[in-house]
Amino acid sequence: MTVSPSLISSDREAEFLADWAVHSRFGAIEGTNGVDRQAASAADGQQRKWFEELLVKHGFSVHRDAIGNQFGLLELVPGAPFVLTGSHMDSQPTAGRFDGAYGVMSSAHACFAVADELRADPSQAKFNLAVVNWFNEEGSRFKPSMMGSNVFTGKAELEAALTTRDAAGITVAEALDELGERGDFTVPEIASYAEIHVQQGRSMEEDGVAIGLVNATWAAHKYEFKVTGAQAHSGSTLMADRQDALLGAARLVVTARELVDDFEPGTLHTACGQLTVYPNSPVVVASEVSLLLDLRSPSAEVIAAAHEKLMATIAQVSDDDRVEIEIVAEHSWDQNPYSEDGVELARSVADDLGLTSAKVMTVAGHDSTNMKDEVPTVMLFVPSVDGVSHSLAEFTKDEDLVSGLHHLTEVVRRLAAGALA
Amino acid sequence: MTVSPSLISSDREAEFLADWAVHSRFGAIEGTNGVDRQAASAADGQQRKWFEELLVKHGFSVHRDAIGNQFGLLELVPGAPFVLTGSHMDSQPTAGRFDGAYGVMSSAHACFAVADELRADPSQAKFNLAVVNWFNEEGSRFKPSMMGSNVFTGKAELEAALTTRDAAGITVAEALDELGERGDFTVPEIASYAEIHVQQGRSMEEDGVAIGLVNATWAAHKYEFKVTGAQAHSGSTLMADRQDALLGAARLVVTARELVDDFEPGTLHTACGQLTVYPNSPVVVASEVSLLLDLRSPSAEVIAAAHEKLMATIAQVSDDDRVEIEIVAEHSWDQNPYSEDGVELARSVADDLGLTSAKVMTVAGHDSTNMKDEVPTVMLFVPSVDGVSHSLAEFTKDEDLVSGLHHLTEVVRRLAAGALA
Repeated sequence: MTVSPSLISSDREAEFLADWAVHSRFGAIEGTNGVDRQAASAADGQQRKWFEELLVKHGFSVHRDAIGNQFGLLELVPGAPFVLTGSHMDSQPTAGRFDGAYGVMSSAHACFAVADELRADPSQAKFNLAVVNWFNEEGSRFKPSMMGSNVFTGKAELEAALTTRDAAGITVAEALDELGERGDFTVPEIASYAEIHVQQGRSMEEDGVAIGLVNATWAAHKYEFKVTGAQAHSGSTLMADRQDALLGAARLVVTARELVDDFEPGTLHTACGQLTVYPNSPVVVASEVSLLLDLRSPSAEVIAAAHEKLMATIAQVSDDDRVEIEIVAEHSWDQNPYSEDGVELARSVADDLGLTSAKVMTVAGHDSTNMKDEVPTVMLFVPSVDGVSHSLAEFTKDEDLVSGLHHLTEVVRRLAAGALA
Repeated sequence: MTVSPSLISSDREAEFLADWAVHSRFGAIEGTNGVDRQAASAADGQQRKWFEELLVKHGFSVHRDAIGNQFGLLELVPGAPFVLTGSHMDSQPTAGRFDGAYGVMSSAHACFAVADELRADPSQAKFNLAVVNWFNEEGSRFKPSMMGSNVFTGKAELEAALTTRDAAGITVAEALDELGERGDFTVPEIASYAEIHVQQGRSMEEDGVAIGLVNATWAAHKYEFKVTGAQAHSGSTLMADRQDALLGAARLVVTARELVDDFEPGTLHTACGQLTVYPNSPVVVASEVSLLLDLRSPSAEVIAAAHEKLMATIAQVSDDDRVEIEIVAEHSWDQNPYSEDGVELARSVADDLGLTSAKVMTVAGHDSTNMKDEVPTVMLFVPSVDGVSHSLAEFTKDEDLVSGLHHLTEVVRRLAAGALA
């Protein structure tokens, strides 16, 4: 995690850290180091306006596409494709300030640096430069996650995304229009994509690695369950007569945790993050519970084995507790590799800059998970203290932020010069 | 469950059933036989207006007290205390149409009948007549339940009740004022109280009993737990690093059910009806879950033993899952008897009318649970098919409704003539 003194003392680093400090105030939660800046919230809108001004100040033109992805473009080679780099500025509720946001801000500053160099010596430029702030990567307000890059890469329908409603019944289209953040821009050809993110895990910190070379996404199987029972008086109804949807759902939550112990440590992550009870009244046995449950593993075989066990438990719970358990939606993916070329480019940049690096897998999905299927892609991590993420306690040291900025700047420089083309 | 033909063919029965049918339309859920008429909702307000007109049409004066209890008074013996009878018209969300509402409507019609008799022969009257529609018995929108009778009997503070907020942040005072249902009426002296309700259990139906003579409320211990963990990424965080509040809460839900099997069948009812997750986002380990958990039993010893086991499990879950489990609020009561005199009056009325009767305990609380500590009280049940309650499927046959009306009418007649005084 050492960075050469010459790299961390420049004006650019100071400028980056100053902009980063301002940026972190949008949606900041008083008394904490975290933010609440869910997709298309007022704070998200204010930050987008500020970010537009920053991009314009550095000579970039700013545009929004039909799903509210925000692009900053700089055309130095008329008609040439663009190197695109970015991440997302939306957050979970009560989240850390680094997740996504660091990627957008370091992408912008990487492009500012490379743009200045290319303006001075246009002969170095093969491609143009673009920064992106993807809409709704988090999926907390509007499901599913990675909405902006899903639509951009054709993995989701625009119309379906725009008509998605939040818990208050507001659609994506309405929320974006309220902020003036829905546009009709058509992005020119993209040559390559780069993204940087804080690691949502602790391996880099433990191993003393400055730059994570992301080479694959874990396999996963995600489920939305609906547990249906029968509404009844929660005091007087005989226990044997009850069909308690919350009991059935609670057994799934416990099962998800217990599944983990059937496999080698670290090979299966499971979670239930969202659970909604109806009617959720003090003296009523719940008739319906919606529940999201995820299985994640580097191994598709582990996922398949865990899936079988989960299905067997569901059958048992349905019988024992006389509730119906329905899979409303599910999607799964195998271990999903990033291209070797991109990993190799990132490794050579780290070596040339004297930064320690190592291949790491990502458990979570990123917008680059979508982009890597479209264009040559580089995905990078910087360390996160204790691997904490989606939490007010998320933290990455300035020196690691700056190392990542330098690395990403060199990656963008090489991509703009034609690397991976 | 036989009713003498002379009792079920009168105009009064037809009038009652007609009014009952109109009454059941307020807050009716299309396509079901049930209602959604939570306290101080628009539907509750409309029904209160209609009920006022009904009372006024029968010569009663209508008043509201400071917590929105609605009273209909008929003074036949100037200055004498009142026989009060009633129940509540608010409902759970997606509830049956009988719970509470049947008690208010049969109380009104019982008073109408007795009033006509006493007007014809005032010498029979020792006391005056009053009908009550208690505010917010259900406690689903504004906690706790039995709010109106709690305040009326001094078991809760008026100011605390009025400032209680629903999930949308609306106070009781605001909701009542919106409907014009908050008044300043001071109720005159009450001589005695009577209430009738559908049984929330199946014993009367199974035993062929027309009138339940309620002689006690089950003992109970109710808890509000707050489970505190730590927000984290639900995909990437190592399982061993997680402090999952939803997992801890789910273990409590399962524990509540499993506790039941440690005791004789039917001696312990447990429930978790309400559970709220924060931040309740698809990819975030929950940091906080609020959970209501109830233990109910006819035996205080069973409650005490179940409480001990629950506390031991909580200590274990706190340790195993590294979450904090705090009791935010709890209240408990021993088996709570109704007065023998009231039960005996109700039994003799049943005998005289040729209605089968039996002593039954109530698992759920009722407004009479409050009133019985203040004045001589009679609490009655009529059967409910399969004991279903707090459900759209709740149902009581017309012949049972009418039997109950006849019984309550005779109880009110005797109370007005001085019984239990």
